[in-house]
Amino acid sequence: MFQHDFVNQRVDIRDPIGMSKASGFLWNKNMMIHMNCRGYAVAQFMQPEPSKYSHALNMEAKTFMQPEQSYFAHHSGRFFYIKCLDSGELFSIPYEPVRAKLDSFNFSVGKDNLIWRVNHLELEIQLTLSLPKNDVTEMWELSVISHSNKTRNIAIYPYFSVGYMSWMNQSAAFDTNLNGIIASSITPYQKVEDYFKNQHLKDKTFLLSKHQPTSWCANQPTFEGEGGLHNPDALQLKQLPQRDALYQTPVASLQFNHQINCQEQVQHQFLFGPAKDDTEIAQIKEKYFGQQDSFNKAHLDYQNYLAQSHGSIQINSPDKAFNEFINHWLPRQVFYHGDVNRLSTDPQTRNYLQDAMGMAFISPEKTKQALITALSQQTISGAMPDGILLHEQAELKYINLVPHSDHGIWLTLCLNCYLNETNDADILTTVIPFADSAQCLPLIDHINLTLDHLLNARNELGLSYIEQGDWCDPMNMVGYKGKGVSAWLTVATAYSLKVWCDICQHHQINQTKIPEYLAAITKLNTAMNTHFWDGKWYARGINDEGIAFGVSNDEEGKIYLNPQTWAMLSGAADQKQQQAMITAIDDNLATPFGIMMLAPSYTKMNENIGRLTQKFPGVSENGSVYNHAAAFYAYSLYQNNQSDKAFDVLKKMLPSQDDATERQQLPTFVPNYYRGAYYQLPEVAGRSSQLFNTGTVAWYYRCIIEELCGLKGQAGTLIITPKLPAHWATLTVRREYLGATFVVDYTKSDQANSTKIVIDGQPSPSNIVSNIAKGQTYHIKVIIGNSEN
Amino acid sequence: MFQHDFVNQRVDIRDPIGMSKASGFLWNKNMMIHMNCRGYAVAQFMQPEPSKYSHALNMEAKTFMQPEQSYFAHHSGRFFYIKCLDSGELFSIPYEPVRAKLDSFNFSVGKDNLIWRVNHLELEIQLTLSLPKNDVTEMWELSVISHSNKTRNIAIYPYFSVGYMSWMNQSAAFDTNLNGIIASSITPYQKVEDYFKNQHLKDKTFLLSKHQPTSWCANQPTFEGEGGLHNPDALQLKQLPQRDALYQTPVASLQFNHQINCQEQVQHQFLFGPAKDDTEIAQIKEKYFGQQDSFNKAHLDYQNYLAQSHGSIQINSPDKAFNEFINHWLPRQVFYHGDVNRLSTDPQTRNYLQDAMGMAFISPEKTKQALITALSQQTISGAMPDGILLHEQAELKYINLVPHSDHGIWLTLCLNCYLNETNDADILTTVIPFADSAQCLPLIDHINLTLDHLLNARNELGLSYIEQGDWCDPMNMVGYKGKGVSAWLTVATAYSLKVWCDICQHHQINQTKIPEYLAAITKLNTAMNTHFWDGKWYARGINDEGIAFGVSNDEEGKIYLNPQTWAMLSGAADQKQQQAMITAIDDNLATPFGIMMLAPSYTKMNENIGRLTQKFPGVSENGSVYNHAAAFYAYSLYQNNQSDKAFDVLKKMLPSQDDATERQQLPTFVPNYYRGAYYQLPEVAGRSSQLFNTGTVAWYYRCIIEELCGLKGQAGTLIITPKLPAHWATLTVRREYLGATFVVDYTKSDQANSTKIVIDGQPSPSNIVSNIAKGQTYHIKVIIGNSEN
Repeated sequence: MFQHDFVNQRVDIRDPIGMSKASGFLWNKNMMIHMNCRGYAVAQFMQPEPSKYSHALNMEAKTFMQPEQSYFAHHSGRFFYIKCLDSGELFSIPYEPVRAKLDSFNFSVGKDNLIWRVNHLELEIQLTLSLPKNDVTEMWELSVISHSNKTRNIAIYPYFSVGYMSWMNQSAAFDTNLNGIIASSITPYQKVEDYFKNQHLKDKTFLLSKHQPTSWCANQPTFEGEGGLHNPDALQLKQLPQRDALYQTPVASLQFNHQINCQEQVQHQFLFGPAKDDTEIAQIKEKYFGQQDSFNKAHLDYQNYLAQSHGSIQINSPDKAFNEFINHWLPRQVFYHGDVNRLSTDPQTRNYLQDAMGMAFISPEKTKQALITALSQQTISGAMPDGILLHEQAELKYINLVPHSDHGIWLTLCLNCYLNETNDADILTTVIPFADSAQCLPLIDHINLTLDHLLNARNELGLSYIEQGDWCDPMNMVGYKGKGVSAWLTVATAYSLKVWCDICQHHQINQTKIPEYLAAITKLNTAMNTHFWDGKWYARGINDEGIAFGVSNDEEGKIYLNPQTWAMLSGAADQKQQQAMITAIDDNLATPFGIMMLAPSYTKMNENIGRLTQKFPGVSENGSVYNHAAAFYAYSLYQNNQSDKAFDVLKKMLPSQDDATERQQLPTFVPNYYRGAYYQLPEVAGRSSQLFNTGTVAWYYRCIIEELCGLKGQAGTLIITPKLPAHWATLTVRREYLGATFVVDYTKSDQANSTKIVIDGQPSPSNIVSNIAKGQTYHIKVIIGNSEN
Repeated sequence: MFQHDFVNQRVDIRDPIGMSKASGFLWNKNMMIHMNCRGYAVAQFMQPEPSKYSHALNMEAKTFMQPEQSYFAHHSGRFFYIKCLDSGELFSIPYEPVRAKLDSFNFSVGKDNLIWRVNHLELEIQLTLSLPKNDVTEMWELSVISHSNKTRNIAIYPYFSVGYMSWMNQSAAFDTNLNGIIASSITPYQKVEDYFKNQHLKDKTFLLSKHQPTSWCANQPTFEGEGGLHNPDALQLKQLPQRDALYQTPVASLQFNHQINCQEQVQHQFLFGPAKDDTEIAQIKEKYFGQQDSFNKAHLDYQNYLAQSHGSIQINSPDKAFNEFINHWLPRQVFYHGDVNRLSTDPQTRNYLQDAMGMAFISPEKTKQALITALSQQTISGAMPDGILLHEQAELKYINLVPHSDHGIWLTLCLNCYLNETNDADILTTVIPFADSAQCLPLIDHINLTLDHLLNARNELGLSYIEQGDWCDPMNMVGYKGKGVSAWLTVATAYSLKVWCDICQHHQINQTKIPEYLAAITKLNTAMNTHFWDGKWYARGINDEGIAFGVSNDEEGKIYLNPQTWAMLSGAADQKQQQAMITAIDDNLATPFGIMMLAPSYTKMNENIGRLTQKFPGVSENGSVYNHAAAFYAYSLYQNNQSDKAFDVLKKMLPSQDDATERQQLPTFVPNYYRGAYYQLPEVAGRSSQLFNTGTVAWYYRCIIEELCGLKGQAGTLIITPKLPAHWATLTVRREYLGATFVVDYTKSDQANSTKIVIDGQPSPSNIVSNIAKGQTYHIKVIIGNSEN
C-alpha cells in the first residue's frame, strides 16, 4: 500500500483508490498547499487573511480549515490530461478526473516536493510540485518519456481549476506576452470603505507555461461541454477552443502537441498562483523562467528554507519508521507551525504558545519573540486574549470570538521549554508592554499577573471557573452563567504554577511569590481531590446548576482524558489514584488508533455541557482520538515513569502499513484527530481529520527529546534520564544543545542495576552534563541499568 | 426549440443541451424552488432567513441570489436514474447526470407545476414537480409506462442531493417507519447564545417515498464510488448498498425494482424537504401520503393559491405569445413578488414598494398593508430605511447596509397606483406610527415628511445628493464625501412630487403644501436643465470633485438611461430635448434584447463613480439590459405618446422562438437583466441573468393596463386612453375594476379622426366611465381614430 523511502525521506503510496484521501502538504512563508494524491488541492495564501486563487465552481464559504475534507469532481484540482493522438486514448494524471486504470501509479510525499510517477500507454510520466521560498507560486514540472518503439503523437493538457472567482467580475484569457492563461476578478464588496481595503488584493490567477502551447481554453463550460470533466468536449477537438471566459467560470487549460520518439523525453514547467496585476505576473515569469536554471534555483532556495527544520535531534532506534518520522516529518511539522503560525493572522493564544514551544528545539529565537508578542497583548489585569494578532489588520475570528478561560495556563509551559533549551535567563527580566496600559513590566511580573489572574478566577471552593470553555472543549454551557467550574483548569492552574515555581527556583527569582504559589498548588490539588474525584477517575467539571459531569454515572461522556492527565502532572493524583485512572483510560478510552478524549461520545445534546455534545460522535472534541490531548497524556506518563505506555500512545499517532488505509493517511504528519467513538461507530473509527494544524507536535517532539531520549536541558546543564521503550535494546541519538553536539549511545545492561553514563570515555559521577562548551561534540555512552529497563 | 402551449398555459422546450439554462420556478408561502431543465435545483425556505435543505458537496457561501447561476456535476439536483436490468443500459432524467442521448425530451413549465416527459428505451416517463401551499415540501410524481412488447425488468433510483450540511454534525440513514431517507445535521455555531437562536431550525432533510423501496443508500461517496455521478458504482450492484452517512456527505437515494409489462404503468410519489424532527416528518408523511387523494388534494390547494394571481386584466391581441405572457406569466410573477416579498426578510424599501404597487392589480389590500408597514418604519425626520423588516428577527443585510438616498421617492408612485385601482381615499388619513417617535401621524403627513426630507437633501444649486448610491446604481464613490449629486434623483424627486400633487388634487387634500411642491418641481426641473443637460441627453450626476459623468465626452458610461426616462416623466425635458434623448438612446443603448442601462459599459475602475465600474461589462448595473430601468423607459414613452416605441421596449423583454437560445430563457418570467455591452462583447450579449426577482414586472403590468390598454383608474372613474401598437388592428380586453367588469373591444378606424367610445351600446360623450356599479359588466367598444393610431 505505501512504503517508506529512507534514503530520500519520502513516503509513497501505490493506490489512489484505496488511499483516496492520502495527501501531502507544502508551505512557504506566504502560502500552503495540501495536495490530495488524486490531484485535488486545497491551497491558501495570506493577504493578510487566508485567500484562495483556485476555487470550486460555486461560491464557497470562507471558513477555517475543515476536517475530513471531502472531494468531488469539480473540487479545485491540478490535472493533466494526456491523449494519444494516434489511438485517441485519454487518461489523466495524477488520477482525476478521467480515473483511468493506470499501469502504475506512485505518489511520493517528500519534505520539499510532491512527486507522482505514472506509467500508462507506454509513457513514463513524472509530475513534481514544489514551491519557492516566499512567492505564492506553485511550481509544476512534468516529464514524459515514451517507451513505445513507435514514434508517438501525444497531446498534454494541463487543466488547473480557477473556479468561481467573484459575482462582481470574473474573466480569463490567454496572454501571448505572458504565455499563459490570466484569470481576472474583482473581490466582491458593497461598502465604499472596502474598496480601499481591497486595493492590494491579488485578484488575478495565472497559469504560465515555459513553452508555447499549441492551443488553450480559458472557459470552463466550453472546455467541459457535455462530456463531463472525465471526458471533456474540448479534448474531442483537434485543438482546444481558444475561448475566453467572459463573466463565466474561468479555467486555465493549455494544450501541447508532441511527436515523441522511443526513449525521448518531453519536459514542461508551469507556474500557478495569484497576482495583483500583469506587471507582477511578468516579474514572476522572469524570476522563474528567465534563466535556464531559475526554476531549479528557486527549488534549491526552498530546500534551504526547509533545511532549517532539521531540529535539534536525530535518532537511530530499532524502529526505522519511527526514526524517519522523528528525524524528518515531525520537526518539519513543528517548524511549519512555529515559522508561519499555521498561516493565520489571529492564532489562538493557546496554540500560538505551544507552537512557539516546539520551535524552542528548532529556532528558539522564534519562541522568545512569540512569548514577548503574546505578553505584549496581555491586559494589565493579567488576562490573556483569546487570540494573538499577528498583523495590524488582523481581527479575532471564529472560535476566538468565544471567551475561553485557559489562555494564561500555557505561558509558563512554553517559557519553561524555552529556558530548558536556551538557558536565556535574560528573557525573565525583559520589559514588555501591555495591551491596555502605558506600564511596561518585566516578564516575571507578566507571568505573576497571569497566574494571579488564574487564581482569582476561582469559586469559593477554590475551583477554576470554566466560563464559555477551556482547552479542547467547546463546553459553552457548563459555565456561561458564571458558576460552572472545570476540573481540568483547576489542575492546569496548579501545573502552570508548579512549572513557574520550578523555573523560579532554577533561576533564583521571584522568591517572595514562590511560597504563596506553592501553597496555592496544594490548595488546588486538594480541591481537585475533594470535589472532583469520582472513585476511579476525576470528573471533568461541575456546571452552573451544580451538576458534575465526566463521572461514572453519566451515560455519555463519563470519562474525559484531560483531567486525568493533568492531575498526574499537577501532583493531585497519588499513586493509587494514578493506577486507577490509567486502568480506566485503558478500559474506556484506548483504541487501536490512540486514546480518545472522552467516552462514550455524546450522541445527543446535553445542556449540562453544550455545543460539544452536538458534534458528531467520535469527531473532533466529541470523543475523537484527539492527538494533542493524547500527547499530553504521553508526557504525563513519562513524568510518572510509565515509559512503555507513553511510547505506545505516541507510536499509535502514526499510521503504519497495517492501518494506513483505515486512517486514509500517510505517516508524514500527525493529524489533529483520528475518528474516535471506537466502540460506538467502529466502522468509521480511525479516520484521519487530514488537518495538520495541531498543538500535538510540539509536545510529541518534547516527549521524544526530553523524555524518551532523556536529554533535557535545565538551567544550562543537560540532564540525562532516558526512558526507552522496553523493546528497544539500543538507541543512538545526535542532539544539539547550547551550541554543542551530543552523540549519545544507549545500551541496556542486565548486569548493572542503575544507569551508568560515560562522557568522552570518562565515567560520569552524575547524570548531569555541566559546563557545556559551545562548538564541542560530546560522545556519551548511556548504559541503562536493569532497574530502569 | 421551444413552444407555447396556449391551452395549458405552459411553455416547453425540447432540448436540454441548447437550452441548458432554461428553467422554471415554483414557490409557496414559505419556499421557492428554481428548477433547471436538466435537473439542477436552487431551493430556499424561510426560517426566518433563507435556508437550504439540499446543498453542493462543499460548504457554500450564504449569499443573495446570484445572477447567471452556473451548474456543475455535484450541484444540488433532483435526479432519477433508470436502469434496464435486462440489458444493463442506464440513463437518467431529467437529463443529468448520465446525459444520455434520450429518444425525446420535453420540459414543460406550467403555472403550478413543472413536467418532464422523456421517452427512452421504449419507456415513456413523466416526472412532475409541484408544491403544497404552505409546507416546505417538494412533491414529486414519477410515472413510467413501458411500450416494449416484452416484459421488462427495470430499476428506478431517485437521487436527491443533500450535500454538505454541516461541519459540526451530519449523517443520514433510511428510516423504516417513515419510509425514507432522513439526513440529520446541526447548524454550526460557536457562541452559546446562538444555541438558543438555532433551536427552531429545520436541520433535517427528508426524502419520503409512498412505496416501499427495494433498497437505499444514504452515503454519497459510497453511492458514487469511482464511477462518478454519471455512472455511479452503486448502480453496478444488484442492490443499492444500504450505507448510512456517518459524518460523511449524505445523499437521499432509493431503489425500486419493477417488472413491467407492455403498456403497464408504474407510479411513484416522493416528498423532499427540511424538517425539525422526526415527529414533523411523520406529520408530513401522514398529510401527503395518508389518504389515497392527499397528494392530489394538496396540489389542488396549491392551484387555488396560485389562482389568486389571475390579475385584473386578460387581453386578446393579435400577438398570441404576448397574450399568453400578459394573461398568465406576468401576473404570476407580480403575485410572487407581492405575496411572498421575494422570500426575503428585509426587502429593499424601493423594491418592497414597487412589488406592492404591482399587487394593486391583483390583491390591493396587500398594497395598502405594505404602504402602512413601510411608513411605520420611517423615522420622524422623513427618512425611509434602506430595507423594510418583515420579521422580528430580521436584520438589514448585504446591499441594505449601504445607505441609499432614493427610498422615499417610491412611496407616492406606489400610493398613486393603489388609489387608481381602489379609490380607497381612507388610506390618506390613516394614522401610522414612526420607527423612532411616539408620535403617530396620518399618511398624508408621512408623505409630506418624506418629500420634505428629499427636498432638504439637496445642495445649494437644488440638486439632490447621491450619498453612497441611489436606484440601480452601486455608485458608491460619486457622493460618499457628501457633495456629489444625482441627476436621476433630482428629477425623480420632481416626479415623486408631481405624482403627489396629482393625488392631492384628485382627492382634494393637502392644499397648503401643493403650491410649495409645484414650485419645487419647477425648480428641480430647471436645475436639471441648467446643470445636467449635455446637449443631446442629460448627464447622470456630478461627483464629490465636481466632475460630471454620463456625458458625451466620457469614454465609458457616456449615456445613462434613467436620467432621460425620468426627465420625461418629471416634465424637465421639452419636446426637442425628448427627441434628442430618444435618438441618443436608439443610437447608444438599443439592442435586439432591449435597452441597456448605460453605454459603453465600464471596462475598468473609475473612481469618479465607484463600485459599478468594477462590475463585469454588460452585467447587472454595468450596462446590462436592465429590465426594470427599461420598463420605466417604456412607461415614460407611453406618458409621452411614443406608444410604438414603448411597446417595442416591453416586447423585447420576452424571449421569442428566435432568440431563446441566446438568452437561455423561456418566456415565463422577465429576468432582472439580459447581458448588455452589446457593442463591446456581442458574443455574450442577451443572456438572461436567470433571476426572477425584479421591480420590472409591476411597471410592465402597469404599462399594459393603464397605458397600452389605456384602462386607468382615477378617483373612482375609469379613463380610457388606449395606446395600441400600430401593427395591432384589434384588441379585446377583460378588465376588473372597482368590482365591475369591463369587456373592451378595440378597433381602429381610418374614417374617424378622434377616438369614439360606446358603452353598453351608448356612445359616450367622454373617455371617462363614472359611477361604476360594483358587480356590473360593462361592454365597451373603443373605435380608435386615425389621429391616434
